[in-house]
Amino acid sequence: MRRKEFAMNENEQEVESFLQEMTFGFLGTVGSDGMCRVTPLNFVYGNGYFYVHGSLAGEKMKHLKSNSNVSFTVAKEYAIIPSYFTHPQLACPASAYFKSVMVSGHVEIVNDLQEKADAFSMFMQKLQPEGGYAPIDPANTLYAGQLKAVALIRIVPAKISAKFKFGQNLKADTFENVVEALRKRGENLDDETVEQMQKYCPFHAGE
Amino acid sequence: MRRKEFAMNENEQEVESFLQEMTFGFLGTVGSDGMCRVTPLNFVYGNGYFYVHGSLAGEKMKHLKSNSNVSFTVAKEYAIIPSYFTHPQLACPASAYFKSVMVSGHVEIVNDLQEKADAFSMFMQKLQPEGGYAPIDPANTLYAGQLKAVALIRIVPAKISAKFKFGQNLKADTFENVVEALRKRGENLDDETVEQMQKYCPFHAGE
Repeated sequence: MRRKEFAMNENEQEVESFLQEMTFGFLGTVGSDGMCRVTPLNFVYGNGYFYVHGSLAGEKMKHLKSNSNVSFTVAKEYAIIPSYFTHPQLACPASAYFKSVMVSGHVEIVNDLQEKADAFSMFMQKLQPEGGYAPIDPANTLYAGQLKAVALIRIVPAKISAKFKFGQNLKADTFENVVEALRKRGENLDDETVEQMQKYCPFHAGE
Repeated sequence: MRRKEFAMNENEQEVESFLQEMTFGFLGTVGSDGMCRVTPLNFVYGNGYFYVHGSLAGEKMKHLKSNSNVSFTVAKEYAIIPSYFTHPQLACPASAYFKSVMVSGHVEIVNDLQEKADAFSMFMQKLQPEGGYAPIDPANTLYAGQLKAVALIRIVPAKISAKFKFGQNLKADTFENVVEALRKRGENLDDETVEQMQKYCPFHAGE
C-alpha cells in the first residue's frame, strides 16, 4: 500500500469512516483541450485506492486516456447555519457546516480480473451489505464476461486532505449559542451536527 | 440573459427546480500545472448564472486566475437499488438512482457592488428563506465593507446537461418489480424515488 500524505487535523481513521459512510464522490478530469469535467460516481476506498467504475466509452474515459491526473472530492453538508444564530442583523455570518475530503492523484485502469472482482466485492459490501448475490469470482461463468466488459479505475492518491467544518473558529459563547439554536431547531441532521461540533471543537476537549 | 444549450430530456423548469432545491455543488478548476481541483461550494442559480463565493486567497482563486474554464456539477442520490430487486444471483444489476446537472463554462469575478448585493440576497433567500437579517444593500454601512472584501464569482454556462436516472432503461415488468421493492423497503428517499420513476419513465406517461 502506497503511503499517502494526510494533510488534515482530522485523523486518518475518522476520514476512512467518513469515506465508508459516503456512497458517492465527484471525479474531476481534464480533457486534451484543457477543459475539466466533474462527474458524480459511486466509489469505494480500500487498499489505499479509490475505485470507481463505468462504461469504457464516454467523455470521462476519453479525458483519462489523454490526462491521468485527477481530483476526487467527497462532501456531506450537515447543517445550514442561519445568520441570526450568531448576529441579530448582519447576513454575513450565515454559514454551512460540512465534512469534505479532497484527493489529488492519478488514475490507473485495472485490467486484472482478480483485482476487479475484489474491488466490485468491496462495492457490494459497502452498498449492499445485506448480501443477496453470488460471490463475485472471475472463475464463475456468471461473472467472467461481465468483469471483462466493465471498466474499473483506481485513483492512486498523491495527497488526501480533509476539512471538517463545525464552528471551530467561533468564540466559546457564540459556539454555545449555535449549539443551543441547533438543539432548538432540531431538523434533519441538527442533532448530529451538535455531536460533531462538540467532537471537533478544541475547547470542548477537556469537558 | 445569455442563451444556454440545454442538452437533456428533462425540461428546463425541472432542472431549475432541482438547482433551487440543492444547496451545494462541485466546482472543477484547472491549475497552471494542468492539475484539476474539485471544490464543494454553496451556490445559487439566477439570471442565467451560477454564483459561488469565497475567500480571495486560496488555491481555487489561483486556478481561476490562470484558467477561467470550469465545470460545475450538482448531484443528489435518491436510492441504492440492490441487485436482488431485479436478479436473484448476479451482483451486476446493482445500481443507484440519482439526479445530476453538469455545467461547463467559464467564470468571471464580480466586482460591481450592486450585483454582489443582489447575488448574496439570492443566497440568503435560498438558504435562509425565513429572513432574520437586514436587507443586503451596498449603501448600508453594515454591508459596504463586507461586500468589497468577499469574492463573488459567476459561472457563465456554455452548456448545461442533466441526467435524471430512474430506471428508464428497464423493461416494464422489471420496472414494476423495482417500484414494488422500493415501496416495501420504504427507507430514506424510497417513496420519492418511486414518484420520480413514475414521472420519468415513458411507458407510464399514458397511465
